Amino acid sequence: MSWIIRESGFDQERIAIYGNKFMSGNGYMGYRGTLDEFMRSELTATILAGLYDKVGDKWREPINAPNGLSTTVICDGVTLSVLEREPLEHEQELDIRHGVHRRRTVYPAKGGGTVTIESERFCSLQRLHLLVNRVTITSSQDCELIITTGIDGRIWDINGPHLERMEGTIQAGAQGETMTCTSWTHELNIPVTVSHSLACGFGKQRSVDSDDFLGKEIRLQAEAGKSYTFHKYVSVFTGLDEAADTITAAFKDSQEATEIGYEALYAEHTDCWERKWKESDVRIEGDDEAQLALRYSLYQLHIIAPGHSEKLSIPARGLSGQVYKGAIFWDTEMFMLPFFLYTQPGVARNLMMYRVHTLDGARRKAAEYGYEGAFYAWESQENGNDACTLFNVNDVFTGRPMRTYFRDKQVHISADVAYGIWQYFIFTGDDSILLDGGAETVLECARFFYSYAYYNSFKSRYEILDVTGPDEYHERVNNNAFTNAMVKRCLHVSLEVLDYLQSKYPDVAESLMVDSRIKPEQLRDMHERLYIPQPAEGTGVIEQFDRYFTLEDVTLEQLKSRVLNKHEYLGGGNGLATTTQILKQADVVLMLHLFKDEFSRAIKQRNWEYYEPRTEHGSSLSSCIYALVAADIGLSDWAYPYFKRTATIDLTGDSKQYVGDLYIGGTHPAANGGAWMAAILGFSGLRFDGESVSIAPSLPEAWSSVSFPLRLRGASFTVTIEADQVQVEAAEENKVSIEFRIKRRVGEGTEITDSEVAASLENVMAAPGQILSIAL
Amino acid sequence: MSWIIRESGFDQERIAIYGNKFMSGNGYMGYRGTLDEFMRSELTATILAGLYDKVGDKWREPINAPNGLSTTVICDGVTLSVLEREPLEHEQELDIRHGVHRRRTVYPAKGGGTVTIESERFCSLQRLHLLVNRVTITSSQDCELIITTGIDGRIWDINGPHLERMEGTIQAGAQGETMTCTSWTHELNIPVTVSHSLACGFGKQRSVDSDDFLGKEIRLQAEAGKSYTFHKYVSVFTGLDEAADTITAAFKDSQEATEIGYEALYAEHTDCWERKWKESDVRIEGDDEAQLALRYSLYQLHIIAPGHSEKLSIPARGLSGQVYKGAIFWDTEMFMLPFFLYTQPGVARNLMMYRVHTLDGARRKAAEYGYEGAFYAWESQENGNDACTLFNVNDVFTGRPMRTYFRDKQVHISADVAYGIWQYFIFTGDDSILLDGGAETVLECARFFYSYAYYNSFKSRYEILDVTGPDEYHERVNNNAFTNAMVKRCLHVSLEVLDYLQSKYPDVAESLMVDSRIKPEQLRDMHERLYIPQPAEGTGVIEQFDRYFTLEDVTLEQLKSRVLNKHEYLGGGNGLATTTQILKQADVVLMLHLFKDEFSRAIKQRNWEYYEPRTEHGSSLSSCIYALVAADIGLSDWAYPYFKRTATIDLTGDSKQYVGDLYIGGTHPAANGGAWMAAILGFSGLRFDGESVSIAPSLPEAWSSVSFPLRLRGASFTVTIEADQVQVEAAEENKVSIEFRIKRRVGEGTEITDSEVAASLENVMAAPGQILSIAL
Repeated sequence: MSWIIRESGFDQERIAIYGNKFMSGNGYMGYRGTLDEFMRSELTATILAGLYDKVGDKWREPINAPNGLSTTVICDGVTLSVLEREPLEHEQELDIRHGVHRRRTVYPAKGGGTVTIESERFCSLQRLHLLVNRVTITSSQDCELIITTGIDGRIWDINGPHLERMEGTIQAGAQGETMTCTSWTHELNIPVTVSHSLACGFGKQRSVDSDDFLGKEIRLQAEAGKSYTFHKYVSVFTGLDEAADTITAAFKDSQEATEIGYEALYAEHTDCWERKWKESDVRIEGDDEAQLALRYSLYQLHIIAPGHSEKLSIPARGLSGQVYKGAIFWDTEMFMLPFFLYTQPGVARNLMMYRVHTLDGARRKAAEYGYEGAFYAWESQENGNDACTLFNVNDVFTGRPMRTYFRDKQVHISADVAYGIWQYFIFTGDDSILLDGGAETVLECARFFYSYAYYNSFKSRYEILDVTGPDEYHERVNNNAFTNAMVKRCLHVSLEVLDYLQSKYPDVAESLMVDSRIKPEQLRDMHERLYIPQPAEGTGVIEQFDRYFTLEDVTLEQLKSRVLNKHEYLGGGNGLATTTQILKQADVVLMLHLFKDEFSRAIKQRNWEYYEPRTEHGSSLSSCIYALVAADIGLSDWAYPYFKRTATIDLTGDSKQYVGDLYIGGTHPAANGGAWMAAILGFSGLRFDGESVSIAPSLPEAWSSVSFPLRLRGASFTVTIEADQVQVEAAEENKVSIEFRIKRRVGEGTEITDSEVAASLENVMAAPGQILSIAL
Repeated sequence: MSWIIRESGFDQERIAIYGNKFMSGNGYMGYRGTLDEFMRSELTATILAGLYDKVGDKWREPINAPNGLSTTVICDGVTLSVLEREPLEHEQELDIRHGVHRRRTVYPAKGGGTVTIESERFCSLQRLHLLVNRVTITSSQDCELIITTGIDGRIWDINGPHLERMEGTIQAGAQGETMTCTSWTHELNIPVTVSHSLACGFGKQRSVDSDDFLGKEIRLQAEAGKSYTFHKYVSVFTGLDEAADTITAAFKDSQEATEIGYEALYAEHTDCWERKWKESDVRIEGDDEAQLALRYSLYQLHIIAPGHSEKLSIPARGLSGQVYKGAIFWDTEMFMLPFFLYTQPGVARNLMMYRVHTLDGARRKAAEYGYEGAFYAWESQENGNDACTLFNVNDVFTGRPMRTYFRDKQVHISADVAYGIWQYFIFTGDDSILLDGGAETVLECARFFYSYAYYNSFKSRYEILDVTGPDEYHERVNNNAFTNAMVKRCLHVSLEVLDYLQSKYPDVAESLMVDSRIKPEQLRDMHERLYIPQPAEGTGVIEQFDRYFTLEDVTLEQLKSRVLNKHEYLGGGNGLATTTQILKQADVVLMLHLFKDEFSRAIKQRNWEYYEPRTEHGSSLSSCIYALVAADIGLSDWAYPYFKRTATIDLTGDSKQYVGDLYIGGTHPAANGGAWMAAILGFSGLRFDGESVSIAPSLPEAWSSVSFPLRLRGASFTVTIEADQVQVEAAEENKVSIEFRIKRRVGEGTEITDSEVAASLENVMAAPGQILSIAL
């Protein structure tokens, strides 16, 4: 049963949480975990990846398509809806192995009987435009049923309505009637078509076509004990799709689905899911809770991963709504990319190609601020423009918009992008990404930093000034350790890219260098002389940014005791945290994770111990990093609670819902990716540097084993870690051998020298078909 | 009558304003313009220059000495106080020519009669420790008078009480009894002694010695129509004075004063004032209001000018109270120094030597922030430590202290200091200031900027980042035009100083260069390549700082319509002005004044026109600058209202009294100095560059002439400007001749080329004893 997520009973207060928790999706669209009878105020949404709109002067955000899965049932004049009638029984479940959502609700009927509604649905992973739904109604006594099912325009919108002019058409096809509803976005006039084919073998049907609903009404006299089942085949096409005409395409898709039928669609869909899991499933023995939470995290990633398009990436709230403008943040590169890199490099490539395709937007942003090169959007939409506003949060005390520096100052985003591209290349050896624009992107990012940096003549070093690091509570700081390290990494990557191209594609290298108007000597000089904050003498603590240590050193409790309004933003101009050492999320500690080779175990531990109590974990990007670094230094018991918090965030729904008066609820793909990182890069100690894999396990006490697949440089492996051995299985069909270095993490504590910490037990070549077992 | 300031009638609401308006002082102390019967809540204060104290963890501020001029009168059981009894007549006046304060109040007495109290007082300009007071009481009918007069501890304190343990002693001397009260400051245990000698030839006296009062009670049966006059000789000494023992010194001083007697003391005091005015009086014909306001402004400067000590400078609120911590700001160098430089170079030297004496404080501040050299205190007290806190203003909405960057980021202060020292040297030719530490100070300031600046490799220029310029509503900006220009000036001055010393005192130059660990090449390089924002193409407007033009361009009215609380601070973290182009005070326009040679008349006018409507004039340092630049471009009618506003600020009392919940009332010496600048440097177009004087008049329409003395390079001159001629009179006793260049400002408007603007009519040498008349 570690594949089923289930909730029994219905709680009005938790509608938004259910909606996130029971999400369906296939990367093309996300369908919130709402019920068939839900509408606008229940946050019903079908979010289409990469389609944005702007209404008036409100901010741009993804549009929700009209809800093709709307069904309401009236039994003997009484509406059967959990919103109106307390059910006798209610269950909602998600089969995450197969990407299938189910609900079953038993309502009391007049005269002591019951009516049961069962609904099963999925976003087809085989046919990305398709939503499929089966509804069964069973009454314990004879009754009159009126079923209204179709496409409902009454959906959730933050800055909408985006699709006002709904045009309905009814077309007859070989599989019967298909109703199609089309509307156009405000800003770019992009058509969005939802088609609806109903396969229903009972009752008297009539078409319903109102301002905000298009579908069928089915009336019947139901017999006691008999189950009435109908199927819905809903297809969504937009002007962004390759189809010339969305109406024809959607009509065709619905008709075809109807012809194939529910069972066959279900089978092909679940086959796709089985393949996904084969590439990615992590099996944990000994800890069922962790097993389910981790799988659930991967499920959340799978339903939003753009496997089909290199013009899409993953928004910070996935496809769970319009929150955070449906924008793509650094979350993708730093928190989600590793999972895809290690398991589904095709998705990883798409994610990074999205950045290549939005390079011009990044160039525009750099130019807007007077810099050269590419300054990536902090909140990126389909065009690469920065959707982030200068005033992100309203002051709860005055109601006034508050100037924040997310957009202007989180320059590390460009380094994160360059790093991601390089990672993709070294993981796969696929240099086509470099030739397809990746190399240019990397160089443009480096050039941006060259134009952004300043040289301190007095100290003979380059510095990165006036930035906001991961800890957004401290804006406009100088020499943020994380940012400087990432910039240095970006410069390094740009030099590596140039070296690679010069040796393999000298012409490409030359033309790039001409285009980019920056000399490798400049990059090299800056790379050599860029200041990276170092551990302080005595304490070993790395100062998060210049003068961080001079800030007030309060405890989190003290800080919270000063809060006057529970939604008040702790950062910004006058935020409570800004003048203290309290940080929003892992910052220096994130650097220790990313640059783990460059710091000793003792330094990592001291910084963990210093920063953890000062971290609010006010971002879902924080806990996993503390888990990773704790695991890295062998302290898996320190790491475990942070892993759990990360892996369960969308199961429990325990996360900040408001900042100021801004709603920020939804799913947390970065935390989902963080859960995988904590388990695999953390507890299992997995690393791949493009040459060899190293594994240095430090499993939580409860875990008797963990097993996971890898896809590296085109070859597949399965790694199984047990208490006393590591087993590596290389697939028969592999074309390359890869070296695995199995290490043992020796004990805990800072007394141990680094060379003892992860002593190499054995270096083995995993040749095709080989199964290697290395004792720990 | 253009020497008398007078108010008739008494208005309880205006007590604080009267206290500022009717200030007395002599540079050693300032005595607020309160009445004899006033105490703590009427803000009675005797502020001693350069004496600071700290109580508990509250901020350091000047201490008020116990009030030696306290007198209360009871007539037939009724207290004669304007606070308790509405007077029939009441007048308060200040003779600013002689530095004498008078009050005359007629109270109704029982049975229809009247009692008149007249009190005249002065802070002796001849004897700086001495306060002298004459009180006369006349009743229209027989009555019983009880007069209590002495030293009152019930005085104004913001962060006090500073002087709790008052120890009273009574000593008999040749001139009768002198009562002495001594107390000690909290922080440094510095004794403050106030002695009180009463010369009173009537009534029955008895000593009164309570916790907060030491003095005499005089009882008498007053005869109708007879005037009863007594005299008080009050002397103040502190542990900062050279005297070994403050009690003995004060006793001696009081006794001596008593012996000399009121009339003789008065005469020597007014003689001193006559000399002051001879050195500084500006005579305006045709505009009595301006005449009085300007003289009053100079009066305010005279009473706080530290003529006697080079360890003192002038606080931002003069000696009018404890506001702004009694601290010295850039106000002194940029707004007050010119008046003294042109008229009383001895005072100017003291002001600049104060900076030399506080160099170590500036070094400590630089080191605290990780810089080299001298970073002068934004709010400087006697020790040069920065009294400015990091949280200067409380947020009116939350009551929380708000982080401000006055202390950290107003780096221009060090350039202002270096500039002031150099100005003193070129005005006087007195190189002793350079040898006495001035050269070292200048170099340390330059060195500070070298360590503060960054080199932009991309743009091949030095920049000054992360500063707050004069417009404090925009904190932490990059390349503030004013700051960059001042830094460049500082570097220039440092190179000039080195050149001068190398040619005249090569040994001194060498040892300085060794000590300062900075190479002239570095200063020269930075001087050459420092970025100074230039007029924008097309508009000619100089951007106040990087990206200022991208800020919201609202009108002042729009901004004010957003205000929710009348005391809310418009700057700081979330202040309303921070995200707009509204500035607190002249910033770019101040640069245009200071660097007037470097910009054309057209540029000056365009910037004036751009920035003036965007200026709140929320600082008393603003109006005079707009007056100066308007006059400079020949638009004296534009300049005039700003001159008037500047010159009358302490007469009308129209100025901000609160920022957040912080009281900021008091006198405005910078505006007082600004009034002189506007009249003389502005309307009269006076300049001295160390070699020659230029005069380019542009008098307000009403002014038929203006006449003023000058003291340059040890020589005295009187300049008289009339509509059709300029007359320069060189004193007989002058030892040097100085060239005067008389210019005519041609017309108005930007059409006129700069060479036409101020066409040189005649260059004349003013040799000793010569009177030159040049027709305009």
